[in-house]
Amino acid sequence: MRSFEFHNPTRILFGRGVTEKCGDVVSGIGRKALLVTGGGSVKRSGYYDRVKRTLEAADVAVIDLQGVKSNPVLSKVVEGISLAKEGEVDVVVALGGGSVMDTGKAVAAGALMDDGYVWQVFEGKRTIQKALPVVTIPSLAASGSEMNGYMVITNESSGYKLATGSPHLYPRVSLLDPEITFTVPSDYTAYGGVDAVCHLMEPYFNGPDPVTPVSDRIAEGLMISIMEATEQAISAPLDFEARAALMWGATLALNGLTKAGVGEHHFPVHMIEHSVSALFDVPHGAGLAALLPGWLRWYASEVGPAKVIQFGNRVFQAGGEGEEGVGRAMNALEAWLRKIGAPASLSELGIGREDLDRIADNSQFQAGVWGLKEELSRGRVMSVLEAAF
Amino acid sequence: MRSFEFHNPTRILFGRGVTEKCGDVVSGIGRKALLVTGGGSVKRSGYYDRVKRTLEAADVAVIDLQGVKSNPVLSKVVEGISLAKEGEVDVVVALGGGSVMDTGKAVAAGALMDDGYVWQVFEGKRTIQKALPVVTIPSLAASGSEMNGYMVITNESSGYKLATGSPHLYPRVSLLDPEITFTVPSDYTAYGGVDAVCHLMEPYFNGPDPVTPVSDRIAEGLMISIMEATEQAISAPLDFEARAALMWGATLALNGLTKAGVGEHHFPVHMIEHSVSALFDVPHGAGLAALLPGWLRWYASEVGPAKVIQFGNRVFQAGGEGEEGVGRAMNALEAWLRKIGAPASLSELGIGREDLDRIADNSQFQAGVWGLKEELSRGRVMSVLEAAF
Repeated sequence: MRSFEFHNPTRILFGRGVTEKCGDVVSGIGRKALLVTGGGSVKRSGYYDRVKRTLEAADVAVIDLQGVKSNPVLSKVVEGISLAKEGEVDVVVALGGGSVMDTGKAVAAGALMDDGYVWQVFEGKRTIQKALPVVTIPSLAASGSEMNGYMVITNESSGYKLATGSPHLYPRVSLLDPEITFTVPSDYTAYGGVDAVCHLMEPYFNGPDPVTPVSDRIAEGLMISIMEATEQAISAPLDFEARAALMWGATLALNGLTKAGVGEHHFPVHMIEHSVSALFDVPHGAGLAALLPGWLRWYASEVGPAKVIQFGNRVFQAGGEGEEGVGRAMNALEAWLRKIGAPASLSELGIGREDLDRIADNSQFQAGVWGLKEELSRGRVMSVLEAAF
Repeated sequence: MRSFEFHNPTRILFGRGVTEKCGDVVSGIGRKALLVTGGGSVKRSGYYDRVKRTLEAADVAVIDLQGVKSNPVLSKVVEGISLAKEGEVDVVVALGGGSVMDTGKAVAAGALMDDGYVWQVFEGKRTIQKALPVVTIPSLAASGSEMNGYMVITNESSGYKLATGSPHLYPRVSLLDPEITFTVPSDYTAYGGVDAVCHLMEPYFNGPDPVTPVSDRIAEGLMISIMEATEQAISAPLDFEARAALMWGATLALNGLTKAGVGEHHFPVHMIEHSVSALFDVPHGAGLAALLPGWLRWYASEVGPAKVIQFGNRVFQAGGEGEEGVGRAMNALEAWLRKIGAPASLSELGIGREDLDRIADNSQFQAGVWGLKEELSRGRVMSVLEAAF
């Protein structure tokens, strides 16, 4: 195990009806909230009205930032920052999926910068010194943004989708109500499951160096739980236990727990996917699904087969050793992706072989920002893309 | 899954040599530290001197509270409270095992009570409103006290050993250096492993009601990791990876993670053991080991066999269904206890059948304090004791 620091100060309230506590929670933090929401699903499901009512009942003034899209864009963040500054907002409430939560975080950071140029943080040109407190109410089990300090934003004018993070971005409180995800359609339920599994797989495949038995076992257990719950939630969307397991599993998948002891690790699949969805505007989880088997094939051949075989045996009980073990692990992963209706290759996503160069080119900006000249070299990215095609 | 709140604000610094950061960490919190230590092992290993040197180098004044014994007693807490009050201490540093950390927490709470009567908290007669900040440096992988708000103290005049907790008792920072446990002898390494496994088993066996797939998988993974690491650390005491896995596994075993979603749960094996060690002064982990198989046998017959079979299959790959599955799970657990040199029954601990009544009687005070008239009824405790004899 490598040395690490673990500090996750987010308070989680989890359970049926917990959104009703929003007003009480937020009024303990601020008096004027920016309420960030997306394209309408939380209005249709009634949660927007509920949350707004509890805020008003608790004497919290509300300014709306609506219409955040998936693969959230910088212009919406900028709009939010100026609303927050003008309205002298003192707390950000994000009600929605990862895009909404990440937009809320970017606004929370930008609102406390004199010039509001939060994009410079994504470009690695400045760091976040402070941020408004954020309360999240995730409406999708996927990104884990509700219990971490990360955010991902697309700059639509430059065409780059970049991730960054800060200890100041951990939500103060997150309200996790599995029932809010009852209306998530099966494709987005699947993509959310894939996103969470990918958050676990990336630091899990950390070889060959660190020995990480504790993180491995936790990650394997969470992968199994999330995979089972994803299947169950797709076949029975109103199954509370399935939605609950998927929601809590996805939250724990990227809260720092399974990265502890792994050492420096930078989520290469996510980074490559950010280039895919920056260029093609596909759902993030679908892009990840299309990349995962190819990346794993690349990993087995370039880094080594041992961890892939362990993954196959412990997560899928796939059996087998050596080449056979790798093959069985790969087959089991692809079978799970197909079972939940997710793409298992870039071609299934409608991306052509002629597009791979553009994706690889786009990824190099991120590689530069993160200083990952080797881990995310153009050659390596192309190898992964070829394997995933 | 039941509704839950999860909030664990402790900052963990983990790795080789991390104790060297003690001065920097503590000087960010206070200027006058009460340094709580035990019977001498941290002096022999040199860690006491190292920690004291870093504190002095960071201009933190140190007052010592030394000689905390295992099964820590109230009189030592009272001594610490008066030292802390007289010395106007503003931070407590606990360097030692669970007994030292729990003594440090009790002092931290008592030092901010006008009358210092912290025992009333254990008796359920008052709650902790505030406490001095606590920094821990665990020298034993066992109690998990380094990342939770619990403490256990024995009142030697009344003969009761009681547990209590408060959100104010989470350590501010804990420094986890696996090398500090290199000198822990094999028996205490084993008892520590048992303590951690028991912290996982108790909320795991939460049936028959809540469905807890995520917590189950995490607990099973941690149990496997801890069991393997315990064996490895006993056979190779200087194996950093084994000590690291055991230390981090034990920390995660009781930090709230695997209790999330389980609902109300009160650690009956720990409570019964507190009566055993209050009366017989055996090491806590040895008492737990002696009780665990009996309690599990009782659980399988009174609550149901399903979870015991799941435990056997997932943790030990024991195989089998129905009665056979229960038998195999029991055998596997007992075999692990014997393999690490821990007792697997009360008789192996030197406790006679004639002592069971006294233990059951003693347990009823705790049952009253916690309001567990059914879960810890005298009849039920006697059944578990008989099964564990």
